[in-house]
Amino acid sequence: MFVVQAARSAFPKVHRLTIMKALPSNVLLAETLRPDFSRGTNDLLPAIAQDMHTKQVLMMAWMNAAAFDETIATGFATYFSRSRDKLWRKGEESGHRQRVEAIRVDCDADTILLLVEQTGAACHEGYASCFFREYRQGRLEIIDKPLVDPKSIYK
Amino acid sequence: MFVVQAARSAFPKVHRLTIMKALPSNVLLAETLRPDFSRGTNDLLPAIAQDMHTKQVLMMAWMNAAAFDETIATGFATYFSRSRDKLWRKGEESGHRQRVEAIRVDCDADTILLLVEQTGAACHEGYASCFFREYRQGRLEIIDKPLVDPKSIYK
Repeated sequence: MFVVQAARSAFPKVHRLTIMKALPSNVLLAETLRPDFSRGTNDLLPAIAQDMHTKQVLMMAWMNAAAFDETIATGFATYFSRSRDKLWRKGEESGHRQRVEAIRVDCDADTILLLVEQTGAACHEGYASCFFREYRQGRLEIIDKPLVDPKSIYK
Repeated sequence: MFVVQAARSAFPKVHRLTIMKALPSNVLLAETLRPDFSRGTNDLLPAIAQDMHTKQVLMMAWMNAAAFDETIATGFATYFSRSRDKLWRKGEESGHRQRVEAIRVDCDADTILLLVEQTGAACHEGYASCFFREYRQGRLEIIDKPLVDPKSIYK
């Protein structure tokens, strides 16, 4: 069992996830219900973020148990950055955070699917989705237009 | 560059992927356009299959370069099974194969998104999607009904 933690100050607007709704705020999510992080390389599992409205697949990132727990605790997607080797609170710098509406897990309990409400662009290159390139006629073509200029997001 | 291989006999109905359409059949896909398999653990990258019609996320599996190449060559999803340590021609046993309509790659070129036309159930447990369980009110609930009895698929 793990304790639902207090929200981080970077995310002042905390909502109670559907997961925990209708439960007293001190109720715990049983650890046995967690995805099986031991199945991942370095205890990291793939987490897919899908736009709950458009159904667009926005991105794939990695979660360890701490990222999963913080996602539940705050109601906003937190991943684990392999390059920075630490928790990555999506949107912390850009403001392009993801409010998590629902969390699903696959049959092997080793892949996570988040249904999210995305603020701004999911992709650090300014596109709505990280999957903005498609193979077409032997080439890799950009099939979308950026929502924002990435230079305006990051300093 | 790699040669587009002949289709496997298990997949008699070969179609030319959008990737290669409008190109002579002997044209090669430049290796530089491939996803960056060197970024994956054991050269395996996550590949997400999304239903092209319903937009439902069906499953996540792993691809190495050989699986990617065979997917392009046959027009049907081929993954790499980590448990069996070999190529996994999705639907080879069950008949529940995935015709690939399009292949996208993310900004870091290390995650693949397949838009597929799914025959039958994507999940070996008989559900349309492997993500048939959702966290709700502190529990992990089955939110879908199986399309088929898994016992009827596999011997």
